[in-house]
Amino acid sequence: MLTVFGTIALDTTRTPFKTETKILGGAATFASLSSSMFTNTSIVGIVGSDFPAEYRSIIDKRVDTRGIVTENRGKTFHYDSSFDYDLSRRTSNKTELNVIAQFEPVIPDEYMKSEYIYLANNDPRQNMKILEYFSDPKLVVCDTIEYWILNCHDKVVKMMSAVDGVVINDDEAKLLCKNTNLVKCAKTIISWGPRFVIIKKGEHGSLLIAENIVFPAPAYPLEEIVDPTGAGDSFAGGFIGYIAKQNSLTFNTMKEAVVYGTVMGSFAVEDFGIRRLLSITQDEVQMRYREYRNLVQF
Amino acid sequence: MLTVFGTIALDTTRTPFKTETKILGGAATFASLSSSMFTNTSIVGIVGSDFPAEYRSIIDKRVDTRGIVTENRGKTFHYDSSFDYDLSRRTSNKTELNVIAQFEPVIPDEYMKSEYIYLANNDPRQNMKILEYFSDPKLVVCDTIEYWILNCHDKVVKMMSAVDGVVINDDEAKLLCKNTNLVKCAKTIISWGPRFVIIKKGEHGSLLIAENIVFPAPAYPLEEIVDPTGAGDSFAGGFIGYIAKQNSLTFNTMKEAVVYGTVMGSFAVEDFGIRRLLSITQDEVQMRYREYRNLVQF
Repeated sequence: MLTVFGTIALDTTRTPFKTETKILGGAATFASLSSSMFTNTSIVGIVGSDFPAEYRSIIDKRVDTRGIVTENRGKTFHYDSSFDYDLSRRTSNKTELNVIAQFEPVIPDEYMKSEYIYLANNDPRQNMKILEYFSDPKLVVCDTIEYWILNCHDKVVKMMSAVDGVVINDDEAKLLCKNTNLVKCAKTIISWGPRFVIIKKGEHGSLLIAENIVFPAPAYPLEEIVDPTGAGDSFAGGFIGYIAKQNSLTFNTMKEAVVYGTVMGSFAVEDFGIRRLLSITQDEVQMRYREYRNLVQF
Repeated sequence: MLTVFGTIALDTTRTPFKTETKILGGAATFASLSSSMFTNTSIVGIVGSDFPAEYRSIIDKRVDTRGIVTENRGKTFHYDSSFDYDLSRRTSNKTELNVIAQFEPVIPDEYMKSEYIYLANNDPRQNMKILEYFSDPKLVVCDTIEYWILNCHDKVVKMMSAVDGVVINDDEAKLLCKNTNLVKCAKTIISWGPRFVIIKKGEHGSLLIAENIVFPAPAYPLEEIVDPTGAGDSFAGGFIGYIAKQNSLTFNTMKEAVVYGTVMGSFAVEDFGIRRLLSITQDEVQMRYREYRNLVQF
């Protein structure tokens, strides 16, 4: 089983073409819906009294939701953002933490035997605390964001030293490691403890770095992008979900997992929010994986 | 034989770590030194009275230089530029066109049977004129730059409609096609006439687009970059040089050629100016090609 811990959000997403208000979002939502295409997934997170029952049932159809706490005295985390004309830059309009501000996550007993754990971009202290619940995980992967790097750099480093793998955006890797060369950034992170690092470069793909090996994977080329929200989280979910399914930690499996992550990220951006993640089939995932392999082979 | 037409320059290149003054540079210099690793290459360009004999002999050792005109009444094209702290952005300090401003290129008789032609980022009218000299080329590839797109957009389109392939930077493709999606940009360019387009994305690699097929190739991951000058021209030279060597225009050959271009670009940035292009051996090129193949395969 894979346990995903992170935000469950109401997103207001504005692109030059369309605005959608308070749709289902959040790092844990995207990651768990994506990983559930590969493996049994459970989710840990908190929502407020305004969280629609319909949204909960969307997650519940694919993911074990016993770890979702409903705090009736507060509202769900709300993130309002706008994309620029080419959907490459996002501006935050409003970030209402609401119930996640005071969240003290508890892990249901049923989750504690999870062998695979994905800690999304939560407070690194929360991520560290959560880890104590699990008896003997095979693989723990975390992400982080600018906010934690700026506000508690040391805690981020400490968290990374406690996990097996790190998934992080290129700009955040540069900020965290104070270096502009991404391979060097990854090696710095590896020197803190984890066995591998994946640097996400958005439309430019990703770099997996481990054991002095680098695996550069271009993005799946798309002509139409509707909403980039959740691409990185869907990537991470696909990556760790595939590893859990294979139950293998070889470098070859990790490479394949990066490609499945790439495939899941490419589906995620084809529609607003989680919509495309809900409609894809196993066949579509396999087909795009094979198509990608054909594209990049020479 | 491959004929390369473009600038031969004196470059003053400033990085945060080092400045080198009036070193040998120019699009045709990089492209021809790169392509000469694969095929017989001849160069067409103009230099002034200040062009060191030593520089000419550097090119002459690898490339047929009968097409270099020396204009003793003028000075060589001089380009002075600075890179920012992470070597990703270049600022032009001074662009002294000098002898290239009035250049009316003439093609030596010996070049006219060239089957492969690379037209670097020259005035599109010059590129069109040059083309008339060649009796029956198998493959003509051109590049262009912001300056021509802004100043004679229609002439750029006309030039592209007369060639078989276009190699162009991502930002320039977006500017030229007024679209931010690179696959769409490439398809727009293909609709004007060429059979394929390669979009260069610097440290993020390249995209080859042809016949509804896309080949995304990540860059070779480097930990140390000394001077990014000439990477794109070395890429183009390696690409067309390999195609000329194979004398094949299949999509598979083009994919391999993109990887050889990637390899040559990765060598070019390892030292200032053309220095690394002069020191690499055939074995090093083959080794890096195989290494790249191993890296990206899964």
